[in-house]
Amino acid sequence: MTTSSTPTIRAAIVGYGNLGRSVEKLIRSQPDMELVGIFSRRPELDTDTPVFPAASAADHAGEIDVLFLCLGSATDIPEQATGYARHFTTVDTYDNHQLVPDHYAAMGEAARAGGNVAVVSTGWDPGLFSLNRTVADALFPDAQQNTFWGKGLSQGHSDAVRRVPGVKRGVQYTIPSEEAIAEAKAGRGAEITGASAHVRECFVVAEEPGAASEEAIREAITTMPDYFAPYTTTVHFITEHEFERDHQGMPHGGHVITSGDLGGSRSSVEFALELGSNPDFTAASQVAYGRAAARLRAEGRTGAFTVLEVAPYLLSPVPLEELIRRDV
Amino acid sequence: MTTSSTPTIRAAIVGYGNLGRSVEKLIRSQPDMELVGIFSRRPELDTDTPVFPAASAADHAGEIDVLFLCLGSATDIPEQATGYARHFTTVDTYDNHQLVPDHYAAMGEAARAGGNVAVVSTGWDPGLFSLNRTVADALFPDAQQNTFWGKGLSQGHSDAVRRVPGVKRGVQYTIPSEEAIAEAKAGRGAEITGASAHVRECFVVAEEPGAASEEAIREAITTMPDYFAPYTTTVHFITEHEFERDHQGMPHGGHVITSGDLGGSRSSVEFALELGSNPDFTAASQVAYGRAAARLRAEGRTGAFTVLEVAPYLLSPVPLEELIRRDV
Repeated sequence: MTTSSTPTIRAAIVGYGNLGRSVEKLIRSQPDMELVGIFSRRPELDTDTPVFPAASAADHAGEIDVLFLCLGSATDIPEQATGYARHFTTVDTYDNHQLVPDHYAAMGEAARAGGNVAVVSTGWDPGLFSLNRTVADALFPDAQQNTFWGKGLSQGHSDAVRRVPGVKRGVQYTIPSEEAIAEAKAGRGAEITGASAHVRECFVVAEEPGAASEEAIREAITTMPDYFAPYTTTVHFITEHEFERDHQGMPHGGHVITSGDLGGSRSSVEFALELGSNPDFTAASQVAYGRAAARLRAEGRTGAFTVLEVAPYLLSPVPLEELIRRDV
Repeated sequence: MTTSSTPTIRAAIVGYGNLGRSVEKLIRSQPDMELVGIFSRRPELDTDTPVFPAASAADHAGEIDVLFLCLGSATDIPEQATGYARHFTTVDTYDNHQLVPDHYAAMGEAARAGGNVAVVSTGWDPGLFSLNRTVADALFPDAQQNTFWGKGLSQGHSDAVRRVPGVKRGVQYTIPSEEAIAEAKAGRGAEITGASAHVRECFVVAEEPGAASEEAIREAITTMPDYFAPYTTTVHFITEHEFERDHQGMPHGGHVITSGDLGGSRSSVEFALELGSNPDFTAASQVAYGRAAARLRAEGRTGAFTVLEVAPYLLSPVPLEELIRRDV
């Protein structure tokens, strides 16, 4: 099995939110991709990439090897993705785990009808975490597997913090518990519950700094039912300057931990991510799988593929022979 | 792309050292494999699996879907592997990194000549670490990547400890330095050298317990040129009972850490193994890739494959549809 150096992959993007902007900048740093344009319903985007009306996308099908669907999973992907898959080889980050089988089936039908490839549900979870769950589980006759998320910014919990009287600005991070991770590695992950798996950390700028006000805020947050009461919650009070300097990003991450017995010995496998920016890293995975989508299509394949069906070397711009020399 | 439930995979083993014995017990716990026999030059093995003379292997080619080559990388694999690949679909754990491209080429030629598949250099390094190096590197335009090995038993360093006068029994573990791992995650891995990346931990039973004797042993070990002097080395004195209870295993493990900039944000990806038994875990990887070898052959493929060319779902006995429902 050999691979030859591929011609430049002509890429385009539909959707220009956080994910689309991250994909745009990452495509520009790939040695084997060029960015043909962005399709959008909004005629004026703040970019120097060519922008075309989303409604005219099909007219450009012959100029594009892979279309990055940077659309929301709630409504845009279900409504629009199969339409694009009929005209383009696509890659998406559809993340509604329960509905992935339906999405995969619908994209497979549309992609086959158009003679295209659709790589679905890339990103990191689903995506790289899915890949690691499957590989690690396959190693053990009876695996214990846990996925932990964080350290990550939680939008819903940050909103709850900001609704507490006296809070001027606030943000909440969900962090996997060190104890829970150690338990999972030791094979006792089956006993870990949601509340014991994670701790919550809040950073708050108080309207009126001072011990009395801060103690009232801390009490209101840590005793909030459902949101914080069941969890170990820490509240840090910081200045507005510190808030603006340290808490504007969208960090995220997580761990997939798998362990089990191998006939008398125990082993554990951990895959862990620490992400400075959730959209940037999701885009990095989507761009690598977009390369794979274009290469699968160039090999004559059609239909839908999950990350579980994509051979790893297809993600890399480095030729297979060099990867074997360097990485194996 | 769909997969149907495969018939039972008929497996056999050649070589019956630590790895062969681990593969034997793991094949027995696979839901989709049966163990036909072990080929050996020694007629009497301590096993209830049928044993056949290695010289007669080719006579059994029609009864075997995948042959596990549990042979040493130093001389057995170079001398014997291509002979087996002409008659069988094979999977090996050849681990001489620099010569993997040659092995891959030779096995590809032999496997194609025989109409077989040869999956080469499975295990964990090469093997699962190779897979992770390629995938993680593909995510970053300019990745910084470090591989650390350990906590692991080092045979050569344990021998050196045992040669120190006054040492009755001794064992040495190589352990990645926590500081070096943190530096790698932070993207400063290029500055990490061998001596700063690992610390060495020794467990020693002294011929004559007591402070004077132990201090002399400690001094002799920690100042030993090349072996220990450049490293941070800790020496623990234990009883013979503790030695037999706690230091008979073959633990190993390691980390692949990749980090980089994604256009304004930094992220890191870590793959980490903690292995109770090096041969058991190497066997677990070989068995999963043995399944993939048999399935690739059943799909009509021939030739050599590295782990980089194997789609992840092929490792698992779980049907693809169920993996997509469960893991994606």
